[in-house]
Amino acid sequence: MKFCTSCGHAVALRVPEGDDRERYVCTACEFIHYTNPRIIVGCLPVYEDKVLLCKRAIEPRYGLWTLPAGFMENGETTMAGAARETWEEARARVSNLELYRIFDLPYISQVYMFYRCDLDDGKYGVGPESLESGLYREDQIPWDEIAFPVVRETLQDYFRDRRAGSYPIQVMPLEYRPH
Amino acid sequence: MKFCTSCGHAVALRVPEGDDRERYVCTACEFIHYTNPRIIVGCLPVYEDKVLLCKRAIEPRYGLWTLPAGFMENGETTMAGAARETWEEARARVSNLELYRIFDLPYISQVYMFYRCDLDDGKYGVGPESLESGLYREDQIPWDEIAFPVVRETLQDYFRDRRAGSYPIQVMPLEYRPH
Ligand SMILES: [Zn+2]
Ligand SMILES: [Zn+2]
Repeated sequence: MKFCTSCGHAVALRVPEGDDRERYVCTACEFIHYTNPRIIVGCLPVYEDKVLLCKRAIEPRYGLWTLPAGFMENGETTMAGAARETWEEARARVSNLELYRIFDLPYISQVYMFYRCDLDDGKYGVGPESLESGLYREDQIPWDEIAFPVVRETLQDYFRDRRAGSYPIQVMPLEYRPH
Repeated sequence: MKFCTSCGHAVALRVPEGDDRERYVCTACEFIHYTNPRIIVGCLPVYEDKVLLCKRAIEPRYGLWTLPAGFMENGETTMAGAARETWEEARARVSNLELYRIFDLPYISQVYMFYRCDLDDGKYGVGPESLESGLYREDQIPWDEIAFPVVRETLQDYFRDRRAGSYPIQVMPLEYRPH
């Protein structure tokens, strides 16, 4: 950032008094601009032995497959955000959301939260950010065309946990892996 | 916010094309400013049958008791952030962090994440944002002087779960309760 959101003058990076790291501080009004990690909420919608995937119609990772997920909005819960994204990207309604995977991505200051859930009536469509959607069995998943490491990890864990019959919640940091 | 972080001109609230809600959009360069929920990370440090609490030296809730917690910073994991806050507020080192409670606070666009952990050697001090710190047994906790509902809930759940001998992770939305 270059300019103060409060007064419009230039900001500069400096360590505010009592702080221990650089912030964007206004050179005119001294307003301190904090920037914080963002939360991405998503769903792992399940219908019978299949999971719902969407093919991305936007960058990054245009044309690759993902679970429905996106930036959490102000004023909503993580669960409501995950369901909202699932509607927006796959025109799918979901129920019985249970927290499943949390990923820390410190290199891009993001935290992912995926909820396992039931896909209502097995129905879905295609939202404006998707090229297509589909229900996939484990052996049908396009493993070589998955958009993000967090999605691949969540899918692999899910099918493993399903064989074991329990779905423990896990938090895991994910280091950068070039695609 | 009033001014564009990119060019310094005035912003206005409007719904960008393809979006479904108002954002602060620059009237000059069209830059869209998204604002998103913030993550607060904290610890429930345990030593023998006691938990570590800090008395707040800052507003809000000056003089009331809390678990060490604060805003997650860019570039760190949720677990590292929780440990960092515990050092900053209580000069305490912690180990064996296990995710325990997640609270959605949609009315203030915050998500809390508390980790259960061991307080190393039972040692602690007082950081600049605390008036004092202390280890408290369940029957010693100043229940009427707890700073935040999320802290009271986490403490109550912890002592109940400890009697039951297991600590399931839970996500819960917390509606506003006037203090
Ligand atoms: Zn300013
Ligand atoms: Zn601008």
